[in-house]
Amino acid sequence: MEISLPRKELFDIPADVIYLNGNSLGVLPKGAAERAQNVIAEEWGRQLIRAWNTAGWMALPQVVGDTLAGLMGAPVGSVATGDTLSIKLYQALAAALDMRPDRRVILSDSGNFPNDLYMAQGLIRTVSKSHELLTPAPEDVMDAITTDVAVVMLTQVDYRTGRMHDMMSITRRAHSVGAVMIWDLAHSAGAVPVHLTATNAEFAVGCTYKYFNGGPGAPAFIYVRPDLVMNISPALAGWQGHDAPFAMEQDYRPAMSIERMRVGTPSVVQMAILQEALKAWEGVDQAEVRAASVRLSERFISEVEARCPQLSLASPRDPALRGSQVSFAFEHGYSAMQAIIDRGVIGDFRAPNIMRFGFTPLYLDEDDVVSAAKVLEQVLGQELWRDPKYQKVARVT
Amino acid sequence: MEISLPRKELFDIPADVIYLNGNSLGVLPKGAAERAQNVIAEEWGRQLIRAWNTAGWMALPQVVGDTLAGLMGAPVGSVATGDTLSIKLYQALAAALDMRPDRRVILSDSGNFPNDLYMAQGLIRTVSKSHELLTPAPEDVMDAITTDVAVVMLTQVDYRTGRMHDMMSITRRAHSVGAVMIWDLAHSAGAVPVHLTATNAEFAVGCTYKYFNGGPGAPAFIYVRPDLVMNISPALAGWQGHDAPFAMEQDYRPAMSIERMRVGTPSVVQMAILQEALKAWEGVDQAEVRAASVRLSERFISEVEARCPQLSLASPRDPALRGSQVSFAFEHGYSAMQAIIDRGVIGDFRAPNIMRFGFTPLYLDEDDVVSAAKVLEQVLGQELWRDPKYQKVARVT
Repeated sequence: MEISLPRKELFDIPADVIYLNGNSLGVLPKGAAERAQNVIAEEWGRQLIRAWNTAGWMALPQVVGDTLAGLMGAPVGSVATGDTLSIKLYQALAAALDMRPDRRVILSDSGNFPNDLYMAQGLIRTVSKSHELLTPAPEDVMDAITTDVAVVMLTQVDYRTGRMHDMMSITRRAHSVGAVMIWDLAHSAGAVPVHLTATNAEFAVGCTYKYFNGGPGAPAFIYVRPDLVMNISPALAGWQGHDAPFAMEQDYRPAMSIERMRVGTPSVVQMAILQEALKAWEGVDQAEVRAASVRLSERFISEVEARCPQLSLASPRDPALRGSQVSFAFEHGYSAMQAIIDRGVIGDFRAPNIMRFGFTPLYLDEDDVVSAAKVLEQVLGQELWRDPKYQKVARVT
Repeated sequence: MEISLPRKELFDIPADVIYLNGNSLGVLPKGAAERAQNVIAEEWGRQLIRAWNTAGWMALPQVVGDTLAGLMGAPVGSVATGDTLSIKLYQALAAALDMRPDRRVILSDSGNFPNDLYMAQGLIRTVSKSHELLTPAPEDVMDAITTDVAVVMLTQVDYRTGRMHDMMSITRRAHSVGAVMIWDLAHSAGAVPVHLTATNAEFAVGCTYKYFNGGPGAPAFIYVRPDLVMNISPALAGWQGHDAPFAMEQDYRPAMSIERMRVGTPSVVQMAILQEALKAWEGVDQAEVRAASVRLSERFISEVEARCPQLSLASPRDPALRGSQVSFAFEHGYSAMQAIIDRGVIGDFRAPNIMRFGFTPLYLDEDDVVSAAKVLEQVLGQELWRDPKYQKVARVT
């Protein structure tokens, strides 16, 4: 079956909005509200505690994990879901450090999403105190991958600039010096083709509320390369990852599968919403998603550059080096972003001066990006951003 | 305002069910489905990313935490919500061990919910390898609290027997030897009065899907004694606990409040449902909840003992030593539980032979417990549990 993009009909998008922020929080899939209603009123309300079995709540995280695996070039049984990206990253990092006990360097980069750095800092403070977190500039990462490095931990697509790391070559380089590779796919999976098996990385983590449209606070995921799963002693040894969660044994005994990466009771309502959201991907070719993403991004850049000389491109110009977002630098970016949001074009702002726009091929078309560029042109050309209501108010803290 | 219990009118309970499992998963509060609908369709669907501010998503976990604090005798600003109980316990335990770096014993008991033991085992395996987890029998805990103990980590009410620890005397004993106290309130808060400030314990954690009726996978909570918060370096150093989560600084800097115990993006839909569920507690006097709980439990015990000589009480007979659940031992407990569930009386079974019944004063009355006892009498007297359909099927694993 040939699926053509976009599939706007699967989503509820406000008529007065052009949404270029799906890289931050995806839009509402049409089935989500009804599914949540069913889980709440029927499964929770009627089946009550029995729903863990009768409604399949216990199995749901793995069912959803398998669907995600299929969207990222990973085999069934290699992806667990639940918790938050922070927790899943912590699990991956703790397991990775366990694999290289004689090395002390965690290598990331200065373009990583700060939360990943925070979680690493917390782990170092708690676990080892002797590990060191290095964050060279993204373009210097390759050279920094030396035999001192225990773990290379990178986010594929930079949350500010959209710059994209080459997963294949970096993973290969990490392995060549004996380091373990962790990829954070938060800003890429669902928009940029990810081939986890081909990449050969040991771990990948990500969230599902961006390109996967799972909703605010949707569960996160962790991929573990199948040959490694059975050797991992989870740092967060929760009962849902126990081999016999209902046997109530006194000692932790990890599940004999990827399910050992589960921790506590999953947020069932949000897991169900995520499962519903992932239906929008049925039959979608990831290569087609990428092609559409590049087409939309390229069109946006050319329209904006033609209309808005005030802005300068902060993303790589070569689409091969870019994820599914485009950023422009503008001194008054904060105010300009408020002004275009006020006119229905929703992107977002990242300090100090980045106006960021995400492209989600499932529900955006070229008319959308041209319209968005026109609004930008109006706001910048007429300096509408100077309106006092768009100025940043200093927070009193 | 005088509130009388139960408040059945606030909940959607199936007409053909007597629910004695609210100590495992609470029933559906009437406003929950509508609230979820509003969060999904209106806040997520219409306001999209803006809802973090416009719908108050960012503040919501703290608002909910403050409500919970009020229900547990703790001040505003002392309870954070999010994640799962497993994660919150891990945070408390990591912080507690940090406070006693020269001690190596974590003291729990063999009646603790196994998950708490698992999380401690995982933390030991990852963080220290030199700590030791001791689990004496519950009745021996007091004597085991010695100057070797870094942390006493106990669940107030035993998930199998309902036996209740005395928080005041155990906490006092822990402090007398210089140990840190962590209480897990999963099986008590919302049914047994908890006075966290009076107890003087350093930490408390719990889940909200039992007596608080937050729904399957509802967010957990952590209480930190206010004088300690500012000295905690969170092991799970997530961006939502950063002092300036949107400043995107490279280094973790904990929030100057209980919010430093936040980790990743909260499950917004479930957090909103929990907030709605907690409205059922408005104006409720915790002492009245306890009185009703004791009344219901005592009535159930006397009805069951008069009607079902086959069962033997596995809970303490003295209500002062019991939480809000009653357990009976019966060799064929598994089958008997299936048989009464089939007849609309929902309790649960815990290996090897425990039939467990929870009492939730917010939505149970004495007629319910008498009716439940009559069903038990019928199932046991007529040996209806012998029906092949109620027998445990050996799992092929």
